[in-house]
Amino acid sequence: MHVPERTSLPHIVVVGAGFGGLTFAQKFPGRLARVTVVDRQNHHLFQPLLYQVATAGLSAVDIAQPVRAILRKKRNLEVLLAEVTGFDLGAKKVLLDHGVATVAGGTGKGTAGRAELAYDYLLLAAGGLTSYYGHDDWEKVAPGLKTLDDALAIRRKVLLSFERAETEPDEQRRRELMTIIVVGGGPTGVELAGTFAELARTVLVRDFDRIDPSKARVLLIEGGDRVLAHYPPDLSASARRQLERLGVEVRLGKHVKDVRAGEVQMPDGEIIRGTVIWGAGVVASPLTKQLGVELDRAGRVKVLPDLSVPGHPEVFAIGDLVTLTDEKGQVVPGVAPAAMQMGRHAAKVIAREIRGDHQSPVGHEPFVYWDKGSLATIGRSSAVAEIGRFHFGGLLAWLAWLFVHLVFLVGLRNRVAVFSNWVYSYLTYKRGARIITGLHGGGPAGSA
Amino acid sequence: MHVPERTSLPHIVVVGAGFGGLTFAQKFPGRLARVTVVDRQNHHLFQPLLYQVATAGLSAVDIAQPVRAILRKKRNLEVLLAEVTGFDLGAKKVLLDHGVATVAGGTGKGTAGRAELAYDYLLLAAGGLTSYYGHDDWEKVAPGLKTLDDALAIRRKVLLSFERAETEPDEQRRRELMTIIVVGGGPTGVELAGTFAELARTVLVRDFDRIDPSKARVLLIEGGDRVLAHYPPDLSASARRQLERLGVEVRLGKHVKDVRAGEVQMPDGEIIRGTVIWGAGVVASPLTKQLGVELDRAGRVKVLPDLSVPGHPEVFAIGDLVTLTDEKGQVVPGVAPAAMQMGRHAAKVIAREIRGDHQSPVGHEPFVYWDKGSLATIGRSSAVAEIGRFHFGGLLAWLAWLFVHLVFLVGLRNRVAVFSNWVYSYLTYKRGARIITGLHGGGPAGSA
Repeated sequence: MHVPERTSLPHIVVVGAGFGGLTFAQKFPGRLARVTVVDRQNHHLFQPLLYQVATAGLSAVDIAQPVRAILRKKRNLEVLLAEVTGFDLGAKKVLLDHGVATVAGGTGKGTAGRAELAYDYLLLAAGGLTSYYGHDDWEKVAPGLKTLDDALAIRRKVLLSFERAETEPDEQRRRELMTIIVVGGGPTGVELAGTFAELARTVLVRDFDRIDPSKARVLLIEGGDRVLAHYPPDLSASARRQLERLGVEVRLGKHVKDVRAGEVQMPDGEIIRGTVIWGAGVVASPLTKQLGVELDRAGRVKVLPDLSVPGHPEVFAIGDLVTLTDEKGQVVPGVAPAAMQMGRHAAKVIAREIRGDHQSPVGHEPFVYWDKGSLATIGRSSAVAEIGRFHFGGLLAWLAWLFVHLVFLVGLRNRVAVFSNWVYSYLTYKRGARIITGLHGGGPAGSA
Repeated sequence: MHVPERTSLPHIVVVGAGFGGLTFAQKFPGRLARVTVVDRQNHHLFQPLLYQVATAGLSAVDIAQPVRAILRKKRNLEVLLAEVTGFDLGAKKVLLDHGVATVAGGTGKGTAGRAELAYDYLLLAAGGLTSYYGHDDWEKVAPGLKTLDDALAIRRKVLLSFERAETEPDEQRRRELMTIIVVGGGPTGVELAGTFAELARTVLVRDFDRIDPSKARVLLIEGGDRVLAHYPPDLSASARRQLERLGVEVRLGKHVKDVRAGEVQMPDGEIIRGTVIWGAGVVASPLTKQLGVELDRAGRVKVLPDLSVPGHPEVFAIGDLVTLTDEKGQVVPGVAPAAMQMGRHAAKVIAREIRGDHQSPVGHEPFVYWDKGSLATIGRSSAVAEIGRFHFGGLLAWLAWLFVHLVFLVGLRNRVAVFSNWVYSYLTYKRGARIITGLHGGGPAGSA
């Protein structure tokens, strides 16, 4: 236990403990400023593996770590579980949903119990949310995949429909209960569709007596003309072939027209019934709207080349909630490595300024994205990879994906757990995490 | 995938996949009857370790296994995820909350889509619920510990109050947020109090900056004059000493008079504020009320010596929902080994009757409980054990407890995961499962 030094050090507030915020917190030199990391969850989530929790391959704790545990040894750093409700950029304050004890601004004075946090520098790294493109009512019937609770909800929904199918007398209805409709052919949609197809054919098939889960229908509906639109066309084609090999029905070129409970409607009027999962859009956290600066259509902040927010040289924004074309003309993508690189860059810029290397906010070093390549997984030993000029698919891409994700997993324990879980699943085709929670209401000790 | 043989075999319906129901299903000879196991959850829960999920030592999936996976290889057996709503003992039918396809009675005829299950034999093994002794309104403010969702709710509640304490400006309020009040000094209460005391002093203490979790106050309130009342007095005394060594305040001889949100009231009017957890009572599943037979005060069925329900020789009841003094004069306790022994006994009795070894329901072999001893754990390397005439406490009892629980854990994977988790926690004092889920409502992709 260490109490932060209450000196006249500047105070940096970091909003969000995702890849960007966490990297900033880890890289920023502790002796230069007090840092307060605020997040509405108590854990950092390894989002690239969230689809594995949804598809019952991993358990929730395998991919999450308490933020306090990760940053435990960092000097002059505090973690706060609270929800940011807005900003007062003029007064340099972050507004919170509940009171905070003795957290002070740069002056060192207490603001006991008031629901705000004074800062000298602000780093906004709150990430994104699932976007339903204006159809917010679709959220209830087609869960997205952004949080652990989302993943557990998707898992519950799919496993429950197979349970219902097992006892359903009507054949038509049974077939619908065994249909999974994934909307959106980006990385999330491709992962979900591929893994669910595999889960049904290799694991669930041995669990049920009456139904034959290998006959489960998995559809991937994408509005554009190819899956993984941000990848080179040859990899999109490869991903599609690998999906089809797993038994996924890929439908391209058509946006869903409507989503209702248990069905989607296509533009030509066709109704497809099944369990609908939303893998389509991402928008920036609604917090960006509170900044009063220009945003793009997805609500992302148009940051300056140094990642600061226009008009507020002491406010920086990074990760999925910004849009930026860097000095080299690269559009920085909304992926974990980009967020981490931005976190590191912001730490460097702010540290330099505090040290006095740059007295003026003008002339900060611009951020340049280093594209290490892209990897998307499809199923067991299926993936596509783009590393520099090399494009490849199949087992080699999957091994690369496995390696990269294990190396990046925060926390040794999780790495060991995830790895042993995978090896075990791979060898036995069992899925240990196939547990449904939250089935009978969240309250304590159900009524029957 | 195997479809049950649709012959004229008798049909046995098992309600509940806890220790009793599962043992029955595993031991019953598959060639003699069709068996349908009905449970409202899709998983079997290793309840003796549930307190570890509540205290963030294990994750939910470590102690749960899908029922389908456990019984996958069993011949002539089906698993049904459904809620039993009642019985028609005259017509030999179990009533369900939703329709069941083509499940037939002993005649082999289908009852497509009707929410009932015909049986030739019924085994009621639905276990128990947390009892609030008539104060059902206490359930909302003092969660009990019976299901995975209960355990996750307790974990969330306790970890959140420490988070709130970290930012609480008022010292008095902060102290209350760091107070855990466990009501009930039975095995569950003792486990929870001991483990939470340990968690605060060894793990949380390194997570927080402002508060000092080693100063957390853990109270165990028991109405009787000793903890672990079903154990010999010397072990109760030993358990109390071990609890106090861990820093738990043990209060004996006083029942709480009232429980309200964040506080309990003692009979002398004293109000103690903190996070209240209910570890006190257990009642039988309310399903027993539907049988129309004599019950004891806790709603348990007074079964005949052969475990059949009076007046219904084809209906058996086992586990926590029965009360029985066996032929040797032993009161059969509500513990996992007793439920398993009863499950085995019921399987033997029904199998013999079907084989024709006993044509009459009279003269069934009576059940005799084999008391292998009792073990209760208190914390890391603290426990008490009673094995025959030997009573012991401390490390040796804890090692015995560890061994017994690992051996009994269903499923190799879980055994490995639990063991490696424990070893890891023991060596590093970290708690990997310290994740709060369900924080911002259960719905998909929260609003902010």
